[in-house]
Amino acid sequence: MFDILKFNKTTTTEQVKQAPTGKLRIVPLGAGDVTKNMFLYETDTEILIVDCGIGFPKEEMFGIDLIIPDITYLQKKLTEGKKIAGMILTHGHDDHIAALPYILPQLPAVNFGIYASPLTKKFIETQFEDFKLNYPVTAINADKTIELGDFQVSFCRMTHSVPEDLHLVIKTPAGTIYHGTDYKFDWTPLDGVLPEVGKIAAAGNSGVLCLVSDCLNSEEQGYSMSEKSLMETFENEMNRAEGKFIFTTQSSNILRIKLLMQLAHKNNRKIGVVGRSIEENLEDARNLGYLDDLPTGIYVRAEKTSKFNPKNICLIVAGSQGQVSSALSRMASGDHSVKIQAGDTVLISGDPIPGNEQAVGALIDSLARLGAKVLHSRINSQLHVSGHAQKEEMKLLIGLTRPRYLMPIGGTFAHMNEYRKLAEEMGYSKNQVFILDEGEIVQVENGMINLASDHAQAKNVLVDGLGIGDVGNVVLRDRQTLAAEGMLVAIISLGNDKLKNEDVEIITRGFIFVKENKEFMEELKQQIISEVNKNEQKVTDILYLQRKIIQFLEKYIYRETKRRPLVLVEVLEV
Amino acid sequence: MFDILKFNKTTTTEQVKQAPTGKLRIVPLGAGDVTKNMFLYETDTEILIVDCGIGFPKEEMFGIDLIIPDITYLQKKLTEGKKIAGMILTHGHDDHIAALPYILPQLPAVNFGIYASPLTKKFIETQFEDFKLNYPVTAINADKTIELGDFQVSFCRMTHSVPEDLHLVIKTPAGTIYHGTDYKFDWTPLDGVLPEVGKIAAAGNSGVLCLVSDCLNSEEQGYSMSEKSLMETFENEMNRAEGKFIFTTQSSNILRIKLLMQLAHKNNRKIGVVGRSIEENLEDARNLGYLDDLPTGIYVRAEKTSKFNPKNICLIVAGSQGQVSSALSRMASGDHSVKIQAGDTVLISGDPIPGNEQAVGALIDSLARLGAKVLHSRINSQLHVSGHAQKEEMKLLIGLTRPRYLMPIGGTFAHMNEYRKLAEEMGYSKNQVFILDEGEIVQVENGMINLASDHAQAKNVLVDGLGIGDVGNVVLRDRQTLAAEGMLVAIISLGNDKLKNEDVEIITRGFIFVKENKEFMEELKQQIISEVNKNEQKVTDILYLQRKIIQFLEKYIYRETKRRPLVLVEVLEV
Repeated sequence: MFDILKFNKTTTTEQVKQAPTGKLRIVPLGAGDVTKNMFLYETDTEILIVDCGIGFPKEEMFGIDLIIPDITYLQKKLTEGKKIAGMILTHGHDDHIAALPYILPQLPAVNFGIYASPLTKKFIETQFEDFKLNYPVTAINADKTIELGDFQVSFCRMTHSVPEDLHLVIKTPAGTIYHGTDYKFDWTPLDGVLPEVGKIAAAGNSGVLCLVSDCLNSEEQGYSMSEKSLMETFENEMNRAEGKFIFTTQSSNILRIKLLMQLAHKNNRKIGVVGRSIEENLEDARNLGYLDDLPTGIYVRAEKTSKFNPKNICLIVAGSQGQVSSALSRMASGDHSVKIQAGDTVLISGDPIPGNEQAVGALIDSLARLGAKVLHSRINSQLHVSGHAQKEEMKLLIGLTRPRYLMPIGGTFAHMNEYRKLAEEMGYSKNQVFILDEGEIVQVENGMINLASDHAQAKNVLVDGLGIGDVGNVVLRDRQTLAAEGMLVAIISLGNDKLKNEDVEIITRGFIFVKENKEFMEELKQQIISEVNKNEQKVTDILYLQRKIIQFLEKYIYRETKRRPLVLVEVLEV
Repeated sequence: MFDILKFNKTTTTEQVKQAPTGKLRIVPLGAGDVTKNMFLYETDTEILIVDCGIGFPKEEMFGIDLIIPDITYLQKKLTEGKKIAGMILTHGHDDHIAALPYILPQLPAVNFGIYASPLTKKFIETQFEDFKLNYPVTAINADKTIELGDFQVSFCRMTHSVPEDLHLVIKTPAGTIYHGTDYKFDWTPLDGVLPEVGKIAAAGNSGVLCLVSDCLNSEEQGYSMSEKSLMETFENEMNRAEGKFIFTTQSSNILRIKLLMQLAHKNNRKIGVVGRSIEENLEDARNLGYLDDLPTGIYVRAEKTSKFNPKNICLIVAGSQGQVSSALSRMASGDHSVKIQAGDTVLISGDPIPGNEQAVGALIDSLARLGAKVLHSRINSQLHVSGHAQKEEMKLLIGLTRPRYLMPIGGTFAHMNEYRKLAEEMGYSKNQVFILDEGEIVQVENGMINLASDHAQAKNVLVDGLGIGDVGNVVLRDRQTLAAEGMLVAIISLGNDKLKNEDVEIITRGFIFVKENKEFMEELKQQIISEVNKNEQKVTDILYLQRKIIQFLEKYIYRETKRRPLVLVEVLEV
């Protein structure tokens, strides 16, 4: 801590003189969000892109599949003549890589290198296949430095809930940025690849201008537990299981899944895999040799497991978040060829992501109804460990890198704020910690960082089916109204005579159950007729009439039902 | 434990002989749900009703305000000549009393006594006022037994997160039922009214046939913490607070709110109350003398607090669950006359109810952005204690009542299942514990309990605006489709000639942003025209044409957009 203070105290005098004279802008395109990671490091002529991930729709974003970063700023810079120096993907989670198939085709040209660790590369290529895309990805050797125009990038292997997580030491014309993507310090990782603290410390010794890093668990005290700590619980539970042992976790957590396979083998259980996401990820991992030390012949097709003694079966199943269409949810509702029976044990290794609690609760209930023993986070906190650093680990990273400035990423405002407090405890001042809001940009000059006066456009670009960005606030607002109150369409055929019964048609959906409310519907029709017929002469201003009838209906319907369906009126002149 | 075993071991021989010979049915109208509590105890001629609460809509029940119990079974029994002997409300939470204004008017006559403790009575009367209803409620003296036809009911004062919680000892012609509504054993309750274990033990000594009781926290080990344990944390945080101290908790937790008022007074802070639910509940409590020992003059109108030094202000605010329209949410978004400033402290005393996590997370974020220090359950587990018994407390209640049978209530299937395991640990057999699914009924005869062969209808009766039960599965399904994909209405004016451009109108909402998709809309129109004009002669079967066009549009739209909006086609003959 003293060292850091000293480092910072000297900042304004000696070190500023020594500071590189180049300029740099740091542009987080997905700022203010836990997911949707995409960062631009921008010099006078070039841009380095780090990550390209999707975000997950909030509850009120009805019908939205996913969210991608807004690249308007990037496209503008490219039009102005800047070049993309390269693109680096730090690890294989969807919120860091899964926007690639949407973003890359939007760029004028993909004439730059795309870099990722071998496993991340495999995951990306599998996604490209789904989209029938074919961009080359270069595998990173984490012991080599890569030169990308204005940028020199070297790597520190880190631990996380997916293998091959990489921190980046980015040398720029304006100084060194340490890009600390999602990580934890796990000293007993399941693959034995330890966090490369030596490299981190060396970066710190050479001088880090800004530490950009994961703050998601900044509210958690102490250190996170190691993946290895799960082994004992898993083994005990598997030993105790009298029927099939069914396991679910995040599909990309290759090492945890492999651990479970090893335990199953030791426990004389054949292994069946259920669910596309896990099958694909395991296939990618297998191709890279991750499963080489498992004996062959331990697998069995999930559909065939019913022929075995349940005590000899272990199923690895996708769907730890209770996703409705996942394998586990379908098995729980009996809607899958692989069945769960009384006496089976289901271990859910994962906490519900905020927003998924009801879905996970419903899953647990359905499984319990089938007679399964369900092990989950509410009854046992030892079934899962987080992949993210906690307070003391964050301090360790700060202590190792000793940056002049800090920028928390990958958390909500509350998380970033908590990170700031932690940095303040270590001796930093408030203005050395940059909490960026949506679209905010920082710029580096003469070894000093300041908030830029301009903004990057930072809309939520929503993906719905084949549409990218065509669903905006107007459409979402309509969906919210339709969801809450349904809709009513009145079609009025306007002739020269007064309106008659057959001139008005009313259609509703999601408003009231028409069959049981015929009287009300008839009353509505009569109200429309008398409202239109009030006019002495034939109405010529159709739009005016439409607006008037809509207003009338909205008021009348609210008074009678206290509901506000979306009301549409179409007047046809016949 | 041995005692219980002995009690149960003798059940089949001696005790069955001694058992009362009458019959009883236990009918939980809201079974399979945590909330929506309503229980019928039914003899050959009479029915005792316990509680009448609302349920809360699940995430996918778009637009639904609340759910009430289905009383079809009750109404049938009344038609058949049975009488309601009386109605008892166990405590003042909405999931136990708030369906009264909906249910009572549905009954052929309210010619029976409605009983509640004085505070619960006040809460009920305040609700009746909102609905302009006027049914008399009789205040329970918990030391007196009341005779209600076939039933003799006595009371045990219990502790919970609202004062005046009552357990019921119900003597019936078929034996004694102990109705253990939501409770905990709090030995240092803030009002000093201890759980009446003496009475419970006496009931146990006289023989309890069935313990019907709260199982919500059956997944939690050990004992729950006392309300009093919160005092120290609250006081420390208030002392530390440099600006206003803003406090929120469940509005009915009168004693916790009073504790905070006492601390505020001690701390030289004037108290302002914001939010209708808290104001109303405090008013009810004040009328019953709950606040008599607080000095007068400690209050200040919330709107005037801006004139005070923030250090001298404490606000009690409604909205601990992040409800969008609550006072705290509106203050957090700056949309309230009472303002939150940098330096204020907000203490959220409560855990998010499953399903509210995103809303509470958003609230915390908004408050942090305003510069407030936010204390919440993610960073401090000492800010709230549950009102529900945990495992060891449940065992204590079982040990005190020593029932022959058990029936967990007020939990999901997973909670009831966990309760069953706990009872099994104490020596009960699986078939002594009744886990009832929706609509299931048990019947008591000769001291034995069995599942009845008939069912009570147990639909979710949904309340939406003024409509009770008129929104069913059809309407909900339409709302879900409308929410996810929006809708499209095509209006076709069919004359004798081929269709022309002006004969087709298309309206959409929540589907795509029409202004930016004019080409697609035009293409749709042309597709409809050519589809209709395919027919050589004028179509006479309008319904057939309608269906055909709908099918065609659904297919075409899905192919082009991978979306499935609700498609409606109206064909008008002109």
